[in-house]
Amino acid sequence: MQTIGILGGGQLGRMLLQAAANYPCYTKVLEKSTDCPSAQVAHEVVIGDFNEYDHVYNFGKTCDVITWEIEHVNVDALLTLENEGKTIIPKPSVLQIIKNKARQKEFYAEQQIPTAPFTIHPNKEHLLANLPNYPFIVKTATGGYDGKGVFKIEDETELYQIPEGELVAETLADLDKEIAIIVAINQHKQVVQFPPVEMVFNPQLNLVDYLISPIDLPEQQLWRIEAIAQKLVQSLKSPGLFAIELFINKDGNIWVNETAPRVHNSGHHTIEANYCSQFDMLWRILLNLPLGNPAARSLALMRNLVGSEHIHFNDPTIFENILKQENVYLHWYGKKETKPGRKLGHITILGNTKQDVLYTNNRLSEILHEKH
Amino acid sequence: MQTIGILGGGQLGRMLLQAAANYPCYTKVLEKSTDCPSAQVAHEVVIGDFNEYDHVYNFGKTCDVITWEIEHVNVDALLTLENEGKTIIPKPSVLQIIKNKARQKEFYAEQQIPTAPFTIHPNKEHLLANLPNYPFIVKTATGGYDGKGVFKIEDETELYQIPEGELVAETLADLDKEIAIIVAINQHKQVVQFPPVEMVFNPQLNLVDYLISPIDLPEQQLWRIEAIAQKLVQSLKSPGLFAIELFINKDGNIWVNETAPRVHNSGHHTIEANYCSQFDMLWRILLNLPLGNPAARSLALMRNLVGSEHIHFNDPTIFENILKQENVYLHWYGKKETKPGRKLGHITILGNTKQDVLYTNNRLSEILHEKH
Repeated sequence: MQTIGILGGGQLGRMLLQAAANYPCYTKVLEKSTDCPSAQVAHEVVIGDFNEYDHVYNFGKTCDVITWEIEHVNVDALLTLENEGKTIIPKPSVLQIIKNKARQKEFYAEQQIPTAPFTIHPNKEHLLANLPNYPFIVKTATGGYDGKGVFKIEDETELYQIPEGELVAETLADLDKEIAIIVAINQHKQVVQFPPVEMVFNPQLNLVDYLISPIDLPEQQLWRIEAIAQKLVQSLKSPGLFAIELFINKDGNIWVNETAPRVHNSGHHTIEANYCSQFDMLWRILLNLPLGNPAARSLALMRNLVGSEHIHFNDPTIFENILKQENVYLHWYGKKETKPGRKLGHITILGNTKQDVLYTNNRLSEILHEKH
Repeated sequence: MQTIGILGGGQLGRMLLQAAANYPCYTKVLEKSTDCPSAQVAHEVVIGDFNEYDHVYNFGKTCDVITWEIEHVNVDALLTLENEGKTIIPKPSVLQIIKNKARQKEFYAEQQIPTAPFTIHPNKEHLLANLPNYPFIVKTATGGYDGKGVFKIEDETELYQIPEGELVAETLADLDKEIAIIVAINQHKQVVQFPPVEMVFNPQLNLVDYLISPIDLPEQQLWRIEAIAQKLVQSLKSPGLFAIELFINKDGNIWVNETAPRVHNSGHHTIEANYCSQFDMLWRILLNLPLGNPAARSLALMRNLVGSEHIHFNDPTIFENILKQENVYLHWYGKKETKPGRKLGHITILGNTKQDVLYTNNRLSEILHEKH
């Protein structure tokens, strides 16, 4: 039986480990505390920091296969482990491309993968001396996560927001839709794609408000998206599961926004809505088993449950009211702290039509914003 | 957050705990060893014997709600805990009826629930002195599990098989079909029923060979089954999830065979094939949340993976070949010992027609009986 090690013990790891219990494998998590969401469903939690070379190296030595649920891990330790013959999925070279948003953009340009026009700046001063046309987007090259580290600059009065460090400036998309597609590639280079989804963002938090799967797009646009996703994943030259976020512009142009080399928020609906979930699919890749069927079994809407001063998840009637709705699935992450803006869980709604799931979602919005 | 205690740490507990990770609750298991299938997915395993009064009582005192995944637990301890105000689901009074097959049969007779005609015998001598007509079935009143403790007596040459202890003798059904139906009743006495399934037995092991969900029966027979199941569960006067096994005789008569007051092998397909799984449904009952939708999302076939001298599950190619089949789901229980006849896992096949799932099942039979 193989030992699979996961760097990071958050909710992505938790859902990954729920799926792991279907397979013959031993599971270990590297995380700072046994209070993490993954601990409940792992064979073993090793206390450590996934940013520390020694912690990652020593953890990896005890595993047959290593993966992660967060990009911000020590890549050098993974490169050493790979040189020593460990199977690391995806390959550490993927993190070298993706962890730094400047390198990620350069990779898209090199591979001729369409992306928003951009410039790279070693620091804030360099950007201020070489300002793009307004409006533009600034992203910190490293350290951004969950919508943090991204700034929209409309005019000079907003320049004060620009942070220090290496920066990417890019043209603001004239957005028609934001979409995501998850692609799985196994150790034998076989590839399957999940149906793309539409993401609707909460402009305040820059977090997904809800997503609908599958997206209803003209066939030619679907083909285009699939071709871009396929090319991108082939260019990474690594097995793994990759979530690609894309913009569809009003002029019909499609731009890759960014790629996550792991299970992703845009695939949570696949647990109930697709034949094989994103989590199940990653286990098949890690354990060198045949890929599953990514097709949609039904239409779905997924919304995050985010900590807020106005919603009191400690009141059990909130879950009672949510689960009174038919074909609604709760996923609660069991986090110890519930600060505003933090993802605490998600809900998936299944239905036959977009109308169905939007109707139920409106009922959920009413329930979540009632006084509790 | 409520603490839910489960007596027993086998595969039923394992699948129950996989579903628990979706809900806000703390989970504890009482089992003799941390090597049990449930340990991986529980917050906590308490080492102890669920047959020992003190072990069950002390475990129960630390929980808000107590349930079990096996009937052979100490009922006296549960009765004390109930008197002290703990919530036990189902009620211990249900175990008093069901744990002893003689009491269970008397209960059916009292409640006018159709069941095979039977006689009860305090011991083997009493039965031998009052022999029913051949052929007949003998069951030990206590201690039988997973097909053990049940004997078919065709003629006097087979009487030697009859064991010691209290016995139930019953008329052999002139079987057309064996079916099972799972009924859920919550703390507010709301009831939902899963669609009934057909069970096809392995005559050697007396274990389910495969089941098909939902069963295709004439409407009037379905109504009859639903009415019997509803009456039986109402008569138990307890919340819980109950799996009822029934015989359909060739003359159309329906007899209740037995009832399990817990999640059951005949409901494993519900994980993928129904909107709400049996495991999810039990959590909704335990946590006092609204019942889920038990309807089938698709046709399914479930087969157990049973230890055998001829099948070598240590060979990883067996899982590879199984998972090459489309819409096939593996559930491996992670048991340390794999002796012949032991349930080691199960497989669910989804399809659009009975033909579909039987076809895939034949492929799986070939794979399982290949030389490994």
